[in-house]
Amino acid sequence: MAVDYAAQILEGSHRAAARLISWLEDEDERAYECMKKLYPHTGRAYVLGITGSPGAGKSTLTNGLAREIRKSGLKVGIVAVDPSSPFTGGALLGDRVRMSELAEDPDIYIRSMATRGFLGGMAKAAADVVKVLDALGKDVVLIETVGVGQDEVDIVGVADTTCVVLVPGLGDAIQSMKAGIMEIADVFVINKADRPGADMLCAETCSRIEMDAHLRERGWLAPVKKTVAVEAEGIDELWLAIEDHRKFLLESGRFYQNRRERISREALRMIHAELFRVVREQLEKSGRLEAAVEKLMNKELDPYTLMRETVTEWLSSSRCERRHDEDTQS
Amino acid sequence: MAVDYAAQILEGSHRAAARLISWLEDEDERAYECMKKLYPHTGRAYVLGITGSPGAGKSTLTNGLAREIRKSGLKVGIVAVDPSSPFTGGALLGDRVRMSELAEDPDIYIRSMATRGFLGGMAKAAADVVKVLDALGKDVVLIETVGVGQDEVDIVGVADTTCVVLVPGLGDAIQSMKAGIMEIADVFVINKADRPGADMLCAETCSRIEMDAHLRERGWLAPVKKTVAVEAEGIDELWLAIEDHRKFLLESGRFYQNRRERISREALRMIHAELFRVVREQLEKSGRLEAAVEKLMNKELDPYTLMRETVTEWLSSSRCERRHDEDTQS
Repeated sequence: MAVDYAAQILEGSHRAAARLISWLEDEDERAYECMKKLYPHTGRAYVLGITGSPGAGKSTLTNGLAREIRKSGLKVGIVAVDPSSPFTGGALLGDRVRMSELAEDPDIYIRSMATRGFLGGMAKAAADVVKVLDALGKDVVLIETVGVGQDEVDIVGVADTTCVVLVPGLGDAIQSMKAGIMEIADVFVINKADRPGADMLCAETCSRIEMDAHLRERGWLAPVKKTVAVEAEGIDELWLAIEDHRKFLLESGRFYQNRRERISREALRMIHAELFRVVREQLEKSGRLEAAVEKLMNKELDPYTLMRETVTEWLSSSRCERRHDEDTQS
Repeated sequence: MAVDYAAQILEGSHRAAARLISWLEDEDERAYECMKKLYPHTGRAYVLGITGSPGAGKSTLTNGLAREIRKSGLKVGIVAVDPSSPFTGGALLGDRVRMSELAEDPDIYIRSMATRGFLGGMAKAAADVVKVLDALGKDVVLIETVGVGQDEVDIVGVADTTCVVLVPGLGDAIQSMKAGIMEIADVFVINKADRPGADMLCAETCSRIEMDAHLRERGWLAPVKKTVAVEAEGIDELWLAIEDHRKFLLESGRFYQNRRERISREALRMIHAELFRVVREQLEKSGRLEAAVEKLMNKELDPYTLMRETVTEWLSSSRCERRHDEDTQS
């Protein structure tokens, strides 16, 4: 008889959760059935995104936050997204090892995800894993990711509250803030705040936030919190700031609105991923891709025409449903 | 009367190329028509990818290579892909300014691309821009990108030869090489080779290459070249190594094979992007997405079922095309 992993996950089995996440990674059909069963039990966990450049100390901060949150008895899940970069892969591997110090607490579940091997992108994969931890009964799910590239920024889109971690001495913070960071940050963390330049960075960040008209309209000015994560300094205040943001979201109605937008984004992402999987399979199996590539090589066809024609064909065949009905009725 | 930008680009107009690339960035319909016309004139440029972690000196190296290549009279195009990271955006901006020193040479065309705003991903966008510079008559197109994240690794997939830039003292090089870098590197560059640790890094890289059975099978062992890009040292030898790789590709038949694979990948990627555009539009316009989101919010529906049902519908309507034909014939 098949083991009911969904039921086990709902009872809090870390082992069953690990199995399901592996299935998700392998695009195993069993994951699909299991996720369907879990979905009605999701949406309860508060999701916290932690992002920042490599070397900002995100892992230590994440560990510290997990410990702080555990003090109030809440259960914690951690999803560490490793961008599988050829350049940073090694360093992140080290972080995972450091994380294992938390692994003894049965109410903390940590899962690190390599991003390779997930069709449909990291953001979809992260959203799936968050749902598993949510169904597992974790009250707070932390997603830790390196904020480089659009894909990684999308991951944070899964979070209710996003903390952006800055450190003194890592390049021109003010410059960097122009490029989209202001929109995603709900709370700024100046980590390694015992380093020279921390007060300056803090002041610059604050003034940048106050100057931003768009942010004022949003009704929430991101607080800037100083931490020294390795010394566990400032983590309690950071958690209070996060709780403040949660209250703001709930009281302003933004919580519901954000979740709705997230669900919409996720649905589109999933439909797109599945559709492409099917289209690709059909193009490859039928030999049509191969034939098209031959023509593209010989310049008898251009990829822009191929793209339009392929998609139009799917579209028009979608319209034919009606034509077919009319034909058979007449 | 409409200006024929495709014709102007084929005559070498940088201004027309800049216009077309802006259209590509804006997803302007005119770009599509123009790219169709240019496609038969592409495939001539040799494409060189330059990747490495932030701070490896890629921009200076790219500039140096451009100057070296110009010595033999070849025309050069440079595509600098800026991952638009909230964290590194500022630093890369500085690189672009440094690049402007080359801008006086009319046979060098430089374009930096922010990755936001390109639907369909960076790799597709980079491939499009390379085609424009190719049609513009550039003999060698250099793509410079920060090698962080899968998306950026995909960009390098556009290149015929990929140079991976390492520097002494930037983390554990041997660790990082485990994570996929060996497969993408055709030539290794140890830049800032006047720094302590350069010889060690060079020796480690060489031994790592020699140990790799998979690489030996490929028939090409990536050479390791030392440069000091800011002093223009070693650039000539690097260019010779790149030319060696080009000869290897041509003589082994890998050149044709790689290009074929690239065209296949690109075609799929374009279909992927177009499919998303169209599906999204249809689901949004028809109000079906909105209705589904309502049900998802209330847990009356789960996104996995939605995904399968939506795609199955597209599929069955695709099959109905044949049924329709049969019906009308009978």
